[in-house]
Amino acid sequence: MTRYSESELAYFSIEQAARLLRRGEISPVDLVEVSLARIERWSPQLNVFLTVLAENARRQAKVAEREIRRGGAKSPLDGIPVSLKDNFWTRGVRTTAGSTILANWVPNVDSEVARSLAAAGAILLGKTNMHEFAYGITGENPHYGSSRNPFAPACISGGSSGGSVVAVALGMGAASVGTDTGGSIRIPAALCGIVGLKPTYGLVSSAGVVPLSTTLDHCGPIARNVTDACILLETIAGKYPRGATRPGWRTLRKTLPRRFRMGVPKEFYFDRLEPQVRHGVERAAKKFESLGARLEEVSLPRLAGAVEQATNVVVAEASAYHESQGYFPARAAEYGDDVRGHLEFGHQLLAVDYFRGMGARRDIIADFEAAFEKVDVILAPTAPISAPLVGKMQVRVTADRETATRAELLRLTRPSNISGMPAISIPCGFTREGLPVGMQLMGPRWGEARLLAIARAYEQATEWHKRRPNLAGGLDAASIGR
Amino acid sequence: MTRYSESELAYFSIEQAARLLRRGEISPVDLVEVSLARIERWSPQLNVFLTVLAENARRQAKVAEREIRRGGAKSPLDGIPVSLKDNFWTRGVRTTAGSTILANWVPNVDSEVARSLAAAGAILLGKTNMHEFAYGITGENPHYGSSRNPFAPACISGGSSGGSVVAVALGMGAASVGTDTGGSIRIPAALCGIVGLKPTYGLVSSAGVVPLSTTLDHCGPIARNVTDACILLETIAGKYPRGATRPGWRTLRKTLPRRFRMGVPKEFYFDRLEPQVRHGVERAAKKFESLGARLEEVSLPRLAGAVEQATNVVVAEASAYHESQGYFPARAAEYGDDVRGHLEFGHQLLAVDYFRGMGARRDIIADFEAAFEKVDVILAPTAPISAPLVGKMQVRVTADRETATRAELLRLTRPSNISGMPAISIPCGFTREGLPVGMQLMGPRWGEARLLAIARAYEQATEWHKRRPNLAGGLDAASIGR
Repeated sequence: MTRYSESELAYFSIEQAARLLRRGEISPVDLVEVSLARIERWSPQLNVFLTVLAENARRQAKVAEREIRRGGAKSPLDGIPVSLKDNFWTRGVRTTAGSTILANWVPNVDSEVARSLAAAGAILLGKTNMHEFAYGITGENPHYGSSRNPFAPACISGGSSGGSVVAVALGMGAASVGTDTGGSIRIPAALCGIVGLKPTYGLVSSAGVVPLSTTLDHCGPIARNVTDACILLETIAGKYPRGATRPGWRTLRKTLPRRFRMGVPKEFYFDRLEPQVRHGVERAAKKFESLGARLEEVSLPRLAGAVEQATNVVVAEASAYHESQGYFPARAAEYGDDVRGHLEFGHQLLAVDYFRGMGARRDIIADFEAAFEKVDVILAPTAPISAPLVGKMQVRVTADRETATRAELLRLTRPSNISGMPAISIPCGFTREGLPVGMQLMGPRWGEARLLAIARAYEQATEWHKRRPNLAGGLDAASIGR
Repeated sequence: MTRYSESELAYFSIEQAARLLRRGEISPVDLVEVSLARIERWSPQLNVFLTVLAENARRQAKVAEREIRRGGAKSPLDGIPVSLKDNFWTRGVRTTAGSTILANWVPNVDSEVARSLAAAGAILLGKTNMHEFAYGITGENPHYGSSRNPFAPACISGGSSGGSVVAVALGMGAASVGTDTGGSIRIPAALCGIVGLKPTYGLVSSAGVVPLSTTLDHCGPIARNVTDACILLETIAGKYPRGATRPGWRTLRKTLPRRFRMGVPKEFYFDRLEPQVRHGVERAAKKFESLGARLEEVSLPRLAGAVEQATNVVVAEASAYHESQGYFPARAAEYGDDVRGHLEFGHQLLAVDYFRGMGARRDIIADFEAAFEKVDVILAPTAPISAPLVGKMQVRVTADRETATRAELLRLTRPSNISGMPAISIPCGFTREGLPVGMQLMGPRWGEARLLAIARAYEQATEWHKRRPNLAGGLDAASIGR
């Protein structure tokens, strides 16, 4: 029916796919079938999807095929298969949030994001695996199995939006939407070699999302390139305040300034990075210079002490939510050990500590605001390390530094959740072992347009985002480390 | 030297005094001397001032006399004596916040409010008595004596800005600035028959104020009439957001709409008011109808349950501040019993309760916003009762309702602190026992201009604000209830 290969169909950018759909050269049915075949082939072993909506997706694909042929596409996402992290409510489709407590919960209303995607004509393939209640950064899940890194299945995908990221990396749909409270979109995107965007706080509605920490939760796109992420953002974003520039995927090229100032934050401690990660980001910095960046060091002087305090905000808000729903402590035994531990800690936390955390947060915001007086964008790695093995609680970062995996993974992404300012992770290299390295670009509040333009310019000048996982050798117990 | 009586000089409005000062018919020296004489006569027994700046005030008055004669007045407050609540930092002048912990603390910098008043030429008479650390609503103070009601010295003045209110009511300066976290400007203003304004949250800078609860603290004017309050507000206010109408004391008349909608909030429970308070407010409502108001009932459905929860915000923030300063629990013995009790409670409060309090707050804000879609202004009493006797922990509100004084006094003012929306208390009657009754007008965020115009229209049509305390009989132990 189509002259494109299975792999081409799986990995078309949204822009390419939309063009071919308009011309009738491919059909939504092709895209959905390829995606479903890949889900069937790899999801059971890599634990990518929790719910697959094969019948629905096929039915929608046929309708979309007919409607696009008849009336044209209603948006660049019309007829494009996508997935959703399983903490977005979907009407009539169970929404587990990666937990057993919600294993059989079926919302009777869509989340705002699900509604926006459907209105744009996107076809929902299913709901993806995640760290239980989004309360963790590795993607390890004791109930549904841990989502696995498609570049090395013995390693973690990262989380909490692990399933969404793996799905997109493996061509199970063109894109996904995840949530990010401490790095949950950006970290798995970095560890799995794709693009993840945490927009400005509040830009994408979190109405109808099972919350982790309401003042720090962000919803955002997961995609294989910056333009696709921008298409998704345009679909799911709410209003920008007056005076701000709304990003447009067709105008990203024009939004790029000829010269721009790029800050390297002193307090992100580049000397505490895994050497190959550091190398990748430093090479990217040089590339940015050739693209018009003037690099300079910036300082966020209150960051170090304040991030720890601000973290109290997450644990208190998470425990408050789980208590309000009657999940915790009433059903404590049904949680995984890590999540139960966090909830216990948050349950006992004092109000004065929460309030101090909010004060620390204001300090961090002020530091970022001062930095963005001087620079247009801040460059950092996304995660200080490449993907560790599943189950590894401690990681060696440098020769003389071994530390807790969870804390280490969160170190560089948390600041942007606390600040509420946008941050994007894009691929910038691979380790000798073949694991992806991601870098993070951070911008000022409502500064997505310029941030995405700069990220896209780098992407256009490099090839990292084009490298695909190769699972052709098959997945046996040895390769996934079981 | 002047043809005006002592009482006329003490009770000139700011507008009148400014006109006479400009014409040279009175001098700032006259105003300061009359104020200081009144402070000397009544402050020791009614516990009005904690620090009197007699020498400074006299010196400034002479300078102002000369400068106004030479170059004219630099503002309507130039040469006008005022006071400040003792939680506003004053450079070189001790700032106790009504506590013994800060009994000898002398700031080396002015609060933003003190700076604004000085820049306008106002003459600072001294620092006024207050509830310890602003953490109470009666004005009773175990360290410095309780500020007394000038209409009945055996009764409380209300608080925490009790000294400021009593000073203004007794002609010790034309106005004062207080702070209001749960009603601390409006309640004493109502109990003592003058005007108190809590502006929109953040409009008046609280930089250099000893905080009670930073997300609920408001600074605002205390005056004998609405126009004077407006003059003060213009002096100490920061910027309004674009699109909002900045109030101007000269244009209040023009700002008054010919017809306006006035809401009476169902959940303020008028049937739970002291009958004479209810009578005063209902009579005021009728007067408003004759001034162009269309009255209608409005509902704030989530108010009742939410106010209790939102109160957790105050106690947590207060304890966090006192802990951060090393005052509590380290110096617990130095607090009065009531304040120590509140701090102990806040110290033990859980983060999840604070967070729920913040959620309750959002609900209340949403309820007010919905109400202000329907009406321009909301009418209520300020306090459900007239001033109780000093030391009375329980009050009988109606024949069948006896309740805790503190909780009862706060019931109707707290909602506007939680909402952050402006509210003004103005006199609207007297009980048979001669105690003042105040009513409260509430407006939407940044809505001071219209709120003050409506309050002024009522004031112009009535005489309540002109009644002065009569202490001519002298103050003996019996009259002040000792």
